[in-house]
Amino acid sequence: MLVVMKNDATEEQVRAVIREIEKMGYRGVPMPGAQRTAVCIIGNKGPVEAARLLAMEGVKEAIPVTKPYKLVSRETHPDSTVITIGGVKIGGGEPVIMAGPCAVESEEQALTIARFVKEHGALVFRAGAFKPRTSPYSFQGMGKEGLKVLAKVRSETGLLIVTEATDSDNLAVVNEYADIIQIGARNMQNYSLLRLAGHLKKPVLLKRGFAATIDEWLMAAEYIMSEGNHRVILCERGIRTFSDNTRNTLDLAAIPSIKEASHLPIIVDPSHAAGRRDYVIPLSRGAIAVGADGLLVEVHHDPAHALSDGMQSLYLPQFEELMRELGRLKLFL
Amino acid sequence: MLVVMKNDATEEQVRAVIREIEKMGYRGVPMPGAQRTAVCIIGNKGPVEAARLLAMEGVKEAIPVTKPYKLVSRETHPDSTVITIGGVKIGGGEPVIMAGPCAVESEEQALTIARFVKEHGALVFRAGAFKPRTSPYSFQGMGKEGLKVLAKVRSETGLLIVTEATDSDNLAVVNEYADIIQIGARNMQNYSLLRLAGHLKKPVLLKRGFAATIDEWLMAAEYIMSEGNHRVILCERGIRTFSDNTRNTLDLAAIPSIKEASHLPIIVDPSHAAGRRDYVIPLSRGAIAVGADGLLVEVHHDPAHALSDGMQSLYLPQFEELMRELGRLKLFL
Amino acid sequence: MLVVMKNDATEEQVRAVIREIEKMGYRGVPMPGAQRTAVCIIGNKGPVEAARLLAMEGVKEAIPVTKPYKLVSRETHPDSTVITIGGVKIGGGEPVIMAGPCAVESEEQALTIARFVKEHGALVFRAGAFKPRTSPYSFQGMGKEGLKVLAKVRSETGLLIVTEATDSDNLAVVNEYADIIQIGARNMQNYSLLRLAGHLKKPVLLKRGFAATIDEWLMAAEYIMSEGNHRVILCERGIRTFSDNTRNTLDLAAIPSIKEASHLPIIVDPSHAAGRRDYVIPLSRGAIAVGADGLLVEVHHDPAHALSDGMQSLYLPQFEELMRELGRLKLFL
Amino acid sequence: MLVVMKNDATEEQVRAVIREIEKMGYRGVPMPGAQRTAVCIIGNKGPVEAARLLAMEGVKEAIPVTKPYKLVSRETHPDSTVITIGGVKIGGGEPVIMAGPCAVESEEQALTIARFVKEHGALVFRAGAFKPRTSPYSFQGMGKEGLKVLAKVRSETGLLIVTEATDSDNLAVVNEYADIIQIGARNMQNYSLLRLAGHLKKPVLLKRGFAATIDEWLMAAEYIMSEGNHRVILCERGIRTFSDNTRNTLDLAAIPSIKEASHLPIIVDPSHAAGRRDYVIPLSRGAIAVGADGLLVEVHHDPAHALSDGMQSLYLPQFEELMRELGRLKLFL
Repeated sequence: MLVVMKNDATEEQVRAVIREIEKMGYRGVPMPGAQRTAVCIIGNKGPVEAARLLAMEGVKEAIPVTKPYKLVSRETHPDSTVITIGGVKIGGGEPVIMAGPCAVESEEQALTIARFVKEHGALVFRAGAFKPRTSPYSFQGMGKEGLKVLAKVRSETGLLIVTEATDSDNLAVVNEYADIIQIGARNMQNYSLLRLAGHLKKPVLLKRGFAATIDEWLMAAEYIMSEGNHRVILCERGIRTFSDNTRNTLDLAAIPSIKEASHLPIIVDPSHAAGRRDYVIPLSRGAIAVGADGLLVEVHHDPAHALSDGMQSLYLPQFEELMRELGRLKLFL
Repeated sequence: MLVVMKNDATEEQVRAVIREIEKMGYRGVPMPGAQRTAVCIIGNKGPVEAARLLAMEGVKEAIPVTKPYKLVSRETHPDSTVITIGGVKIGGGEPVIMAGPCAVESEEQALTIARFVKEHGALVFRAGAFKPRTSPYSFQGMGKEGLKVLAKVRSETGLLIVTEATDSDNLAVVNEYADIIQIGARNMQNYSLLRLAGHLKKPVLLKRGFAATIDEWLMAAEYIMSEGNHRVILCERGIRTFSDNTRNTLDLAAIPSIKEASHLPIIVDPSHAAGRRDYVIPLSRGAIAVGADGLLVEVHHDPAHALSDGMQSLYLPQFEELMRELGRLKLFL
Repeated sequence: MLVVMKNDATEEQVRAVIREIEKMGYRGVPMPGAQRTAVCIIGNKGPVEAARLLAMEGVKEAIPVTKPYKLVSRETHPDSTVITIGGVKIGGGEPVIMAGPCAVESEEQALTIARFVKEHGALVFRAGAFKPRTSPYSFQGMGKEGLKVLAKVRSETGLLIVTEATDSDNLAVVNEYADIIQIGARNMQNYSLLRLAGHLKKPVLLKRGFAATIDEWLMAAEYIMSEGNHRVILCERGIRTFSDNTRNTLDLAAIPSIKEASHLPIIVDPSHAAGRRDYVIPLSRGAIAVGADGLLVEVHHDPAHALSDGMQSLYLPQFEELMRELGRLKLFL
Repeated sequence: MLVVMKNDATEEQVRAVIREIEKMGYRGVPMPGAQRTAVCIIGNKGPVEAARLLAMEGVKEAIPVTKPYKLVSRETHPDSTVITIGGVKIGGGEPVIMAGPCAVESEEQALTIARFVKEHGALVFRAGAFKPRTSPYSFQGMGKEGLKVLAKVRSETGLLIVTEATDSDNLAVVNEYADIIQIGARNMQNYSLLRLAGHLKKPVLLKRGFAATIDEWLMAAEYIMSEGNHRVILCERGIRTFSDNTRNTLDLAAIPSIKEASHLPIIVDPSHAAGRRDYVIPLSRGAIAVGADGLLVEVHHDPAHALSDGMQSLYLPQFEELMRELGRLKLFL
């Protein structure tokens, strides 16, 4: 950390800062500049709590140099993590397609869609049994009955199941039924839920909060990993900006950012980013071309009668078209 | 709701939309325009699910006219809600000052600060026992021991206590000790927590999520109210923007927005918005002048050694100065 | 346009709104709803000025249905525009690569880079002679001398030249030397400059302002077209958001948005979006895979000594690598 | 500047960085840390061009310590600037109210409004003769005829005149007629216009660009001051964010930010921030309470028939109410 002094700071104030740094157990080295002095902190093993230094007379600001996360960091773990579930490898080079409806609505609905996406190359079935909805009056999901439907989908199709846990109550039951536990954007900083997920053995799909920086997102993954569960898959799903052409602005630069900062795999959800089905195919192509390890895509055989998020669900023939395009794209990559 | 047709929509497509609206139990009235036709939906009692209409051929977009919330709405409840706790009235004209440290650190720390803020006019003591922290390695609060300290603060000073519940586990114990239950910005869309808070009898202080629109924030309050707890206090604490002069951008226009849309009281937290203590006094003056029903302010007798958020905590003499300025400002209002 | 009345609006207020609409020369049709009445405006040929209606008693809001632009709109011009310059077609299916340094620094620098990018497949050379810089103390470009260097680059290599005009003074001289006139993000709403560019015969490359919506950007293009110059190329270059992993957040969904709303071609500048060279290749792949009509990329043979934007300029071997990857990607598309 | 090395940087790479710094004429001092080494640059008189260092092997990032502006900085000019025009002092403690319609529409309109605002305490009349409009088809202002009307307003009422110049052509004529030259948000980074305004003798009112950081805004003021015109008044008018309750989000923390970083006066435009008249009075109170040196407010005697921005113009009685409230507020301050 670099402690920058005000340009009218006295020598005594600089000395006081150095003494305080020494009390913290580090060394402080003064760096006189043209307009002001800065003090470098040396000897720290991790982040330094800046508050007490910032509170001192003559201190202007404190500039951190080291990132606050450890377990997620590529610096401490240079090789990319590959998460293997059943025979499926996430992060292993070949993009993995996870597809399905926003919510489980019935066994027939789930099986119809699952068979179709399986046939066209998806390896994981996505569908929510517990739905976080902005309005308390909207459909909240089928709950445990929905999970039973998902178990049936798995046994009938062989697809892996990813589904969301929205609180500590349903986390346990989701853990029983799912192959991958999804934690949604709204819960990205629900630290209690993250810690509990960190005690489980199943991989966690952690969506980026819609106003989270890359560092905050990685810190959320660090919560899970710090409890012992190292199998975290990150999922970019768009961030909130002023731009109104899509529901959220898909930040595909998050892919190289995550790849640089972390060893964890990252997939992309173009459906929630776009909020409209006609942009899902081009954004999917873009995500794979940039280097995503997979996609999470909404598909519905009858979006007009979907109980949630029908606007952004691909029609079945559109999913087929998506997989055809990705098939050709994979040849290139 | 207004369903806007594409400008090349056929008459048959318009008729199909009208038939679908009728199946939903409403009436659809076609409105031919210069470039395109729109269809108005009449006879609905609440929001209409747009998805199935948007999925139809020839439909361009659906424009909602009615807001999705009910219980929070001023339209259904024209008089402003005044929340009375002990003798303290929130929303009753006189701004209520809630002050204290970010976190309970010890009995001595809490009592020192509490006595000071009480002496200078605060009516509510704020301090966290359970702290949601971005890093799993940061101080996470004293937990239940912290709540016991808060109970002691109440019995010694007569101040009301507001403190945060971060999950369903600690909600119950916070409910035992607190006078007002705080739900933080990161949990604003933790719907399970909102629902549980809706079953309690104590008022809830609901912070705005840092990327939440006014409508989403009111929908979160609607979750609490829809479970039966109608005593919700809203708290603006800054939103996330590109602007880097403060940690968050304080949106003081949220005050007239909330006052217009809802009957609920709204207070302002200038400390978390600014992220630095020297802006807290001017922003506090601004919040009260715009019309806030109160303030939530961080104060610490020794910010340099605070275990969290020391940078933004007022020194004790600054709090005294704040209250002196607000005292004069109240004369004006 | 739909005029939404307050839910306590009187019948007389509704009638007054209808009379005012009739005075404007249109028809107003009342639409009684469950909670409120709306009035549809029929018979307008273009956008309606909402202000006078919004100022009336009982009016809550006015919702526009028709987009405010005409000449840029795909509705009025369904076929995609292909802009042909020399033998180069922009918007004609094959992505066009425009590459070069941020600024012309010397003849030797420009020729070195130009020969290299030409050899590897670029068709257009980009380099600024007039540079808009945040600081008045930064290098502001070589001016007219720089344009002469660009003319030499064209005659020696056969590359087309795109370079920026920053004001009405240098627009005339840029028009003399350039094949494509660039208008930068900071000038996207410099309407005087847009109008002047609309009088010229050369194609205009119009960058998206870093806080511009798609509609505002298209309105800026409409300014140019409304003066008679219909050859506008749009360029997405990232928008300003809270996200700090890149200098700007590249909004690749702008590509399908523009393709849907307009017939104009759109290219992507990954260099200014990323602000760092190591993200340029993946973002370029993404842009082409989503459907961009071309790229505008910064390349420098010696970025460490570049006079501006060195951090984001590709090294020459990186440009070669980019073109190799795009070559394979084009096989797929 | 602090140059942070990658954690696997070799000693030779660190030495190469130090040599490069020495070539630039400064000293580089290595600071070994727990995980990585940083190199402090000492002896620089102003900002250091980071690009060539960032391009070196082993360099991770460069962290600037000194702000890039000089003339606007409070560090170089500790006393607050007071701008005196006629007898009016801006920045001298008493807030100055500038009021009037968005645009000059006729002599009668301008005089009616001007007499009213003068009577109730405004000292400056605002109205546009050249209007930057998003659409080329909207009313663009009366041009020079409008300026003549403004001259008449001044001679009849004694009010000072502030009006906008939108390009280098109309800057000269605006300079003839106005007392204060306004440069609008869209032109905040129109550096040619800023430089030209820097050659004039009249004060410049510089609005914050709607996506500009405080530093970028101050750099724009630096452009004007670097050409010799030191009389710059800054005007906060809301920034672009995701929040949709107002047209822009008014950033009142910009007031203490500017007061800290610069000696220049800052006023607030609540009308363009809000985009709706009913929020203008509360936001005006807030701006003055935070510490603004004045307000720029839109007022119209007949907003329903205003040719632009009618929605946000105060009615005359509302302006009277605003001045009454500010009169009482000034007693407090």
